[in-house]
Amino acid sequence: MKVGFIGLGHMGAAMAANLVQAGHEVTVYNRSADKRRALIERGAREATRVADACRGEVVITMLADDNAVSEVVFGHDGLLATLAPQAIHVSMSTISVALCKRLGSAHAANGQRFVAAPVFGRPDMAAAAKLFIVPAGDARTIASCKPLFDAMGQKTWPIGAEPSQANLVKLSGNFLIAALIEALGEAIALVGKAGVDRLAYVDLLASTMFPAPSYRIYGELIATGKFEPAAFAAPLGAKDIRLTLSAAESLNVPMPLASLLRDRFVRLAAQGGHELDWAAIGGLAAQDAGEGQLPPVSIHTTG
Amino acid sequence: MKVGFIGLGHMGAAMAANLVQAGHEVTVYNRSADKRRALIERGAREATRVADACRGEVVITMLADDNAVSEVVFGHDGLLATLAPQAIHVSMSTISVALCKRLGSAHAANGQRFVAAPVFGRPDMAAAAKLFIVPAGDARTIASCKPLFDAMGQKTWPIGAEPSQANLVKLSGNFLIAALIEALGEAIALVGKAGVDRLAYVDLLASTMFPAPSYRIYGELIATGKFEPAAFAAPLGAKDIRLTLSAAESLNVPMPLASLLRDRFVRLAAQGGHELDWAAIGGLAAQDAGEGQLPPVSIHTTG
Amino acid sequence: MKVGFIGLGHMGAAMAANLVQAGHEVTVYNRSADKRRALIERGAREATRVADACRGEVVITMLADDNAVSEVVFGHDGLLATLAPQAIHVSMSTISVALCKRLGSAHAANGQRFVAAPVFGRPDMAAAAKLFIVPAGDARTIASCKPLFDAMGQKTWPIGAEPSQANLVKLSGNFLIAALIEALGEAIALVGKAGVDRLAYVDLLASTMFPAPSYRIYGELIATGKFEPAAFAAPLGAKDIRLTLSAAESLNVPMPLASLLRDRFVRLAAQGGHELDWAAIGGLAAQDAGEGQLPPVSIHTTG
Amino acid sequence: MKVGFIGLGHMGAAMAANLVQAGHEVTVYNRSADKRRALIERGAREATRVADACRGEVVITMLADDNAVSEVVFGHDGLLATLAPQAIHVSMSTISVALCKRLGSAHAANGQRFVAAPVFGRPDMAAAAKLFIVPAGDARTIASCKPLFDAMGQKTWPIGAEPSQANLVKLSGNFLIAALIEALGEAIALVGKAGVDRLAYVDLLASTMFPAPSYRIYGELIATGKFEPAAFAAPLGAKDIRLTLSAAESLNVPMPLASLLRDRFVRLAAQGGHELDWAAIGGLAAQDAGEGQLPPVSIHTTG
Repeated sequence: MKVGFIGLGHMGAAMAANLVQAGHEVTVYNRSADKRRALIERGAREATRVADACRGEVVITMLADDNAVSEVVFGHDGLLATLAPQAIHVSMSTISVALCKRLGSAHAANGQRFVAAPVFGRPDMAAAAKLFIVPAGDARTIASCKPLFDAMGQKTWPIGAEPSQANLVKLSGNFLIAALIEALGEAIALVGKAGVDRLAYVDLLASTMFPAPSYRIYGELIATGKFEPAAFAAPLGAKDIRLTLSAAESLNVPMPLASLLRDRFVRLAAQGGHELDWAAIGGLAAQDAGEGQLPPVSIHTTG
Repeated sequence: MKVGFIGLGHMGAAMAANLVQAGHEVTVYNRSADKRRALIERGAREATRVADACRGEVVITMLADDNAVSEVVFGHDGLLATLAPQAIHVSMSTISVALCKRLGSAHAANGQRFVAAPVFGRPDMAAAAKLFIVPAGDARTIASCKPLFDAMGQKTWPIGAEPSQANLVKLSGNFLIAALIEALGEAIALVGKAGVDRLAYVDLLASTMFPAPSYRIYGELIATGKFEPAAFAAPLGAKDIRLTLSAAESLNVPMPLASLLRDRFVRLAAQGGHELDWAAIGGLAAQDAGEGQLPPVSIHTTG
Repeated sequence: MKVGFIGLGHMGAAMAANLVQAGHEVTVYNRSADKRRALIERGAREATRVADACRGEVVITMLADDNAVSEVVFGHDGLLATLAPQAIHVSMSTISVALCKRLGSAHAANGQRFVAAPVFGRPDMAAAAKLFIVPAGDARTIASCKPLFDAMGQKTWPIGAEPSQANLVKLSGNFLIAALIEALGEAIALVGKAGVDRLAYVDLLASTMFPAPSYRIYGELIATGKFEPAAFAAPLGAKDIRLTLSAAESLNVPMPLASLLRDRFVRLAAQGGHELDWAAIGGLAAQDAGEGQLPPVSIHTTG
Repeated sequence: MKVGFIGLGHMGAAMAANLVQAGHEVTVYNRSADKRRALIERGAREATRVADACRGEVVITMLADDNAVSEVVFGHDGLLATLAPQAIHVSMSTISVALCKRLGSAHAANGQRFVAAPVFGRPDMAAAAKLFIVPAGDARTIASCKPLFDAMGQKTWPIGAEPSQANLVKLSGNFLIAALIEALGEAIALVGKAGVDRLAYVDLLASTMFPAPSYRIYGELIATGKFEPAAFAAPLGAKDIRLTLSAAESLNVPMPLASLLRDRFVRLAAQGGHELDWAAIGGLAAQDAGEGQLPPVSIHTTG
């Protein structure tokens, strides 16, 4: 298929490369030209403007956040202005439910088609074309994109007819991971303070009752306290919990555990943890338990 | 009236002195003899054993906790064994609902009468006979004790026919104060970080919307970070929240704010805050906000 | 002074009337003309457009929320466009810290002066000119407005040099009241389930340890379960907690109690409680405790 | 080996049968005789008193709670009184850290050996000898018991030299499952209210990012709202969270997520959910979101 790809970060670059590899005609765009170059060497065509990536049947966006997506869609010579009638915008970024709804309406008003198809998986899974892809939208439009999804992921799970449902599912997935980090953080703080070997404990959990990779990966990060370099930085996790709570508020769904996670991320930010992996919120329970040097309780003076 | 008084701490000594002052015949007992002496100088009689304080119409207990009360009541030659039929045990300590129920049953089985009458007020209010006294139990028994309550407090509020109701009300009152401390702690951390003068803020609150002494007293402690010396030590506050949650669990009443307070007290204890005033939990919000030096998030290593 | 007054709701109408009463030349504007009429009968002049209320030395805004304030300030022929150089905009509404900062910058850029002066007090206090007024901004500008504040309130407490500090203080005040509602809700659920008379309990609290009007007012609402008609509707309380958390997040201050309150308001909204007084979040603890008929736990079926 | 087995519930009966099957000489005791009979048919010997199960090298206890264990150990003719010197008590029940420490001291004082070896796994895993066994204690004592562990489980993970560490690890494991239930409950309430098919969502999660059986099992229970019959009843889950928090308090480890879970269990109990599976706490988020008929907020009247 003839497809544009916008956004060549860790995830996007790997995904675009797999599309090229599968034989699709891929035109890539990224704001910084150097990231485009690596893809061109692998056989992609270069777009120097957003509009140049919008000439095919499909254009995929894989960007950092709502702002970045809004800009390439609604901006001057953006997707909305340049995509052909019936052409498909596949939004694979983790964005808010509200923006997703706005994208759907705007494309529909322009006679363009729109699918949200966020992904589960880390950069190594993207590189290995092992992502899980969760599209939502019109079933026939999703079917049209199937060859692309097959090139990027190990499995595609359509989850609904309304594109924003896919974004909500993606956000909820990140909420579940953050919840798991908090739970592990508290459990490790508890058994660790009782003298149990933290890494042996994580190995036990991940080998027995919790054989999901997340338990081992995050458990080991927390047990060793190694939160740098970040595979997924704390501010991104904070953003996703915020978007989850925002969607939940619109739907009138109280999520007390999500609120707890939000407070954890705010506290981590207050400690200057912007560069840390989001697993670092799992280190706060041990901090609460008084391990390490702690600040005095009275920490300011009013003169 | 002829009355025994057991427990001569900060509160008890002041209360017993007011009974003497009002002309009652008061026999005092305290484990350490030196505390008895001050009262004797003011006109009280000395009991060198618990039993010697149990010869009158009424014996009042004003002790630190469940253990202390259990010991003087159920112990060898304790109240239960020595109090005359129809004599009244007035329990003024802050104890658990469960112990209060046990006391009621035991005294009833022995033909003795029992009233719970916990107090609201700090030591200075006890000294000035300005306590608020909250009795519960048989109305006629409470009425019999009225002269004693009048000598110790500014007002008596009977709150129920079941003695343990008074203990629950007392615990709930301390929960409300701890809740106020947490709320002030968060509010002061917020406005303080935005550059508002903390003491001016407390003065504003206490002079306008919140003219209860607690707002000024605890607000100033938090604003200045002066948690020593303790007027009411953190472990006592922790105990009362624990007893509140325990009573709430028996009644199947979820209290999420009480749970938050419990976590705060556990955290304060983890920081070694046993000597601090319970207002120190109000300093934790500022600590969370990163004011002062904070410990690194990764605080242990597994080798 | 020659002053414009925009926003004639329960609070604004009373405040404007007091300005007229004090002899100021007041021009009032409200979107619905009927609310203007009552003021005109008391001696105010009528503005039929926002701009007509902006001819004096000062214009006061007392509006429902950020949107309403943004519209009259930034809209066509709004305050920004029509206020004379050096004229003062006094923003008395409860708005976000972010909007307040934006107002300050915009007025400064236009050579106009700006003060934030939110108020503490209910409509009856506004009518009696008994409000507490909390201005922040340039000290001389505040001093210029003093005659107006004196006409509307019982006391003026300048709280800082940066206008948004006053908004933060106002939001924090509403947070403290909501915290008090939650605490009372839990305490009343607890003692009520133990058979203590709820109104007697509230009377005890408000007469002894918590002699602030809020304890009696909100305690009685919770004890009787009478949440209609609303003096301050739940969605307004929800908004203020949301603005508090938003400001706290910008400042990196975790506020777990505010998060709990947020969840309470979301839950109340899910129950359709939009018309209820915000005190209704204080009824949720009793609901949690299983008082009244409860819904079955399994509440949906997937076919 | 010659071994006694006390406690023939769902788990214990299956474990004892596997010991018989592996050729050990097993004497079984259970308070109700009918449960003993099934084992006798499979080749076990019958003990009609606790003491009769204490004649071998090892006696295993697999009982419901602290009380049951205390009774068979400290009671008249219990383990403590009848076990031979150097004989081993293997405690496989989920009990408190405090009781485990008491057992260790008491056996040591009597010259008996003691190991805690709680298990992870449900009754079907017990029947299939697929349990995960987590012993802690003296390494040589654990090694002596290895043949027994091998007959009952798929893998044995020694976790420490202090028996109570194993109990803490077991409790923390149940905490992690309860945390997962709460997280799934909130996520399912969220996406379900947005119209996503709940079972499809659970299938997606369990097939992609969370391939641990617990996600599928508990996700399906929550998605369908089928909490009866209980595989693990809510009061047992409530007990384990309470024991976790109690151990955490002793160690000064605040666990806010565990506190949230505690409140959930108390609320479930208030709704009369004693017969439900502990997964039912995962239905409370949907209840909060207003799905199903909800009780009015004002639920009592004070006359």
